[in-house]
Parts: sequence; C-alpha cells; structure tokens
Amino acid sequence: MDFTPADAATLHRILTWRRDVRHFRRDAIDPETIARLEAAMDLAPSVGNARPWRVIRVEATDLRAQVRAEFARCNAQAADRYADAQHDAYLRLKLAGLDAAPLQLAVFTVTDPDEGHRLGRMTMPSTLADSTAMAIHTLWLAARAENLGTGMVSILDPAVMAQIFAVPPGWAFAAYLCLGHPEFTDDTPLLHRAGWQENTTHRWDLR
Amino acid sequence: MDFTPADAATLHRILTWRRDVRHFRRDAIDPETIARLEAAMDLAPSVGNARPWRVIRVEATDLRAQVRAEFARCNAQAADRYADAQHDAYLRLKLAGLDAAPLQLAVFTVTDPDEGHRLGRMTMPSTLADSTAMAIHTLWLAARAENLGTGMVSILDPAVMAQIFAVPPGWAFAAYLCLGHPEFTDDTPLLHRAGWQENTTHRWDLR
Repeated sequence: MDFTPADAATLHRILTWRRDVRHFRRDAIDPETIARLEAAMDLAPSVGNARPWRVIRVEATDLRAQVRAEFARCNAQAADRYADAQHDAYLRLKLAGLDAAPLQLAVFTVTDPDEGHRLGRMTMPSTLADSTAMAIHTLWLAARAENLGTGMVSILDPAVMAQIFAVPPGWAFAAYLCLGHPEFTDDTPLLHRAGWQENTTHRWDLR
Repeated sequence: MDFTPADAATLHRILTWRRDVRHFRRDAIDPETIARLEAAMDLAPSVGNARPWRVIRVEATDLRAQVRAEFARCNAQAADRYADAQHDAYLRLKLAGLDAAPLQLAVFTVTDPDEGHRLGRMTMPSTLADSTAMAIHTLWLAARAENLGTGMVSILDPAVMAQIFAVPPGWAFAAYLCLGHPEFTDDTPLLHRAGWQENTTHRWDLR
C-alpha cells in the first residue's frame, strides 16, 4: 500500500481542521456513521496489541445529568483557583458541550489486561493509558473526516466517574467525549482565539 | 471546511496500514519530509493548548548506543518473566528497529508546563501524557501517509532514559521512536501475525 502526496495532503487538512469542539447542534448522528466511528477505534495502535480501552455510550438521562453535575462541580473548583482577570477569563470560556452533544462516551482503560501478556509495558505501564489516548485520537480524526466534532472533557474527578458508571475494579477513567455536528468549524484552537493560551511550536532538539 | 466520503476513506486507509514497524531500511529520510513530520506534531490536540511534548532527535552514535544497550537490558529482563514456550516466543519477536532506523526520536512530557495555565488538567494531570501520546500518534499517521514506518519503543526504563539525555527536572520520558522506510507494509499487526496477541474488537457498551 503506497500513499500519494494527495493522500498526505488530505490527512494534513483533517489534522488542521480537527478541533476540541464544545459547541454542538442537537441533531442526532446517523447510526451508520456511529458504527463506522466505533470500528475506527479498533485501528488504533496499542501496547502488546492489548487494546485496553473500554467505551460506554451514555444515553440514559440520569447518567448524563450526573456527568453534567460532576463537571459543574469540578469546573467551579477550577475557576476558584484563578484570581482577578484570569478568573473572569476562565468563566467566560465554554469548556464542554455536555448540554447539547447527541453522542456522549465515557472512556476507561483496563489497567492490567490479559491481552498482550504484558508485552511492552513492564517498564512503562503508562503505555496502556497512551494506547487509550491514541484510540481517542483515532476516533477524533475519523469523526472530523465525517464532518463531526469531538470534545474531550477532563474537568471531572476520575474516582467519581468510576462511581457514576459503576465500572469494574481496574478500570481507570480516561476521558468523557462529546460528539456531534459542530456549530462552526475552525482551523485555530478556541483557547488561542480566546487569548487564554496562544499556539506554540516545538522544534526538535538535535543531539 | 467540509470533508467528502473520499477523504474519510483516505483516512481509513492510512489508519488501516499504519503499523508499529520494527523492520527498517537504512536509507535516510529526506530533510523536507522530516520538516513536514516535525510540523505535523504541532497539529495534535493538547490539554489547555499546552503542547507539553518535547522531542530530541538523536543522531549521536554514543547516544544511540546507550539506548540500544538500555533496550537490550530491559528486553532481557522482560523475557525472563515468561516461562517455557512463551519465553521462546518472546525471544523470537523483533520488538524494536533501533539497529537500522535512520531517524530516532526521544520524546518527553513536561509535567507542569506554564502553557495552558493548568486549564483542563487540575483533576486529571494525566491529560498531559495523553497529549504527548496524541502528538506521537499524529506523527505516526503523518509518517505513514509519507510511506514511512514508525515504531514506538517502550521496553526502556524511563529514569535511565532521562539520565541518558540529561533532561531538565520535570520532563517525563514518554517513548523512543524509530522512523524510516519500512522493509514491508502490512494491514495486520505483527503480534497478531506472530500469534502473540490476536486482534480484538470492542463494541461500545450502551447505557
């Protein structure tokens, strides 16, 4: 399988227009698209081919309400740790699309899976969480290529999230994802536009 | 920016043919391609737009030799933890392309960056490592679209890697990456082909 410069350019456009989306329309994603997104995660890399991510699709009204409440609690605590103008700027940011996103996913990592037989992770158990992060990123890009937005919500207490979803012992909360049709598209991060944190570039340090 | 079904299909092919590559040709990657790969990482998502990854491009012969020695040490220790047939199967696997890969990168995460002003990571500091994992995955896909292979090496002691590269305090080792022209391409993971760990699929659990 050889790729062309046009293929590389397509990937570059998808990467460029991928955003952390917090502004969603409420219309549902069609089931065929959801099935494709679900299957795309299986293509992510994983340590020892262990595929340690576990995904709960959250439709129940009471579960969604509990997540919104937990976000509100954690976000208020976070806001309190900023002073003066930064406090006000923080409160002006919209940091999650929990109110409207039609598809919501709670993602966990199995911290000691049988799969993979520990290969590649004895020295670095963190590679399991890395695998889940890459699976989330795979979903993120696949969604963008379907003209859908994804938001990754981390302003949540991992222990509370494990309680809300009553997950088995050994499942570590990774992220809560909101997906849906975005209200707008952009090639520039919202936090850069809002003046919270401008884009930085990191060149490789040659040794 | 709207994407077409053809664009989504291109991404799907790139995801399908991305492998953890350990078999490299020795010919160099041209500098223009390396520059594009370097720039691609800036397009990865990051918590608070903090972009906490730091990359060292390793060209010095003595540094490469130290990494190979550390891999050999950790890999021998890992092999010793398997018994009988699994021990033999482990030893037959080629788990790194450190011998031949023309481009080698040591990747670290800044664990308390000023950038982002702690946004999004107060409850989950692990989101910084997640950001680095997603930047590695971004590079991985960009390389594949340029017909290059990437291997992520984690059979290394993070503390020793920090020593070898004498990184500042607060830099956590994330991974050592090997890049180059692959000896062959495949749509199926090596560990599946070798019978070490077959592919699994995870459907979303509806609640």
